[in-house]
Amino acid sequence: MTSYDTKDLYKLNRRGLMFILSSPSGAGKTTISRALVKNNQNLSVSISATTRPRRAGEVSGKDYHFIDIGKFDELVRTGDMLEHAEVFGNHYGTPRKPVEDALINGQDIIFDIDWQGTQQLRQVARDDLVTVFILPPSGAELEKRLRSRAKDTRETEEQIRGRMSKAADEISHYDAYDYILINDDIDKSIERAQMILDAERQKRQRMTGLPEFVKHLRKSL
Amino acid sequence: MTSYDTKDLYKLNRRGLMFILSSPSGAGKTTISRALVKNNQNLSVSISATTRPRRAGEVSGKDYHFIDIGKFDELVRTGDMLEHAEVFGNHYGTPRKPVEDALINGQDIIFDIDWQGTQQLRQVARDDLVTVFILPPSGAELEKRLRSRAKDTRETEEQIRGRMSKAADEISHYDAYDYILINDDIDKSIERAQMILDAERQKRQRMTGLPEFVKHLRKSL
Repeated sequence: MTSYDTKDLYKLNRRGLMFILSSPSGAGKTTISRALVKNNQNLSVSISATTRPRRAGEVSGKDYHFIDIGKFDELVRTGDMLEHAEVFGNHYGTPRKPVEDALINGQDIIFDIDWQGTQQLRQVARDDLVTVFILPPSGAELEKRLRSRAKDTRETEEQIRGRMSKAADEISHYDAYDYILINDDIDKSIERAQMILDAERQKRQRMTGLPEFVKHLRKSL
Repeated sequence: MTSYDTKDLYKLNRRGLMFILSSPSGAGKTTISRALVKNNQNLSVSISATTRPRRAGEVSGKDYHFIDIGKFDELVRTGDMLEHAEVFGNHYGTPRKPVEDALINGQDIIFDIDWQGTQQLRQVARDDLVTVFILPPSGAELEKRLRSRAKDTRETEEQIRGRMSKAADEISHYDAYDYILINDDIDKSIERAQMILDAERQKRQRMTGLPEFVKHLRKSL
């Protein structure tokens, strides 16, 4: 893992960032996302709101915010949903308020989201976004990973073919992202993602405490 | 030092970048710059052209490109000087050609340059620039470093005061830079600068080999 720790960044009030990871299914997005959350105290996963019924074992406010369609539509109408989509008749979205609260408090939020969700976020949260697209090193490698996973989930050959074809579509949107990670090695990819996160935390525009810091510094010269 | 090595980035043809370090005198710019060059095979220092006479021990093409004023003016006139300035009657500048050759070959170049030079570079090389401003943690700390250095160089009290006053001016330009490093610890600052360099190397826009890579990848799906 990384030798430097995020504690090694200079402590100054800063605005959090929205760290977006997109990739085709099987490219490693979820593994990288989980590792980053584990390694960074200051980073948490965005919790979506959904109209889909709660399943056994799911906790409201942890897995999802479970809300009804009336509430969901209201949030969309008032501009309080950063992005939203309908999947198989259920609605999913990202409520604005918890994200905005986190950013103001210098907390970073990670989004494991597809190109369509990213497009919506770009329209409403431009300066807070850091977008990373993860690519598999080759089609053969992606197929290997999908087949390996299919053994556990008992997917059919047709479902695997469907995922491969969907991957080609997803990948076509790589050119709207800030950074590209080619995931040839999962540990290296986690490290590379961490570098991006730490570098972005040092962007001037995010350091809200900087004007005050510089004012004092110049006075003391 | 950093545990990850730049070899750990995925190898794909990319355009080099211009890594700009600015700071007031005494804030650590030169130390950080030298450490980065030492730790990164792919990173070299920009060599300026100058009309000042060569001093004993200086090597043309290594310390400076020594050229006459006629040649210097011609390079400025033809737009082949990325930035230039006159200091005590001597002219200094950055010739465009070697920089452009390096960038095309995926070599990164580091510039240890003030805010005025950075302003000029911004006008002609926007997408290739990564700008980093280094701040001292406090006025007292900067003064301590300047006084410690003054012992070696036998600077007068007046010269030290002059550097402090100039530092206040230089610092006022922090807000035009992409990243801010507050140098409270030189080893950490080198590490933080390395993170920024490695993250920027993973920017999509610099990966010139990416469209071809993605074309093959999508074909193989």
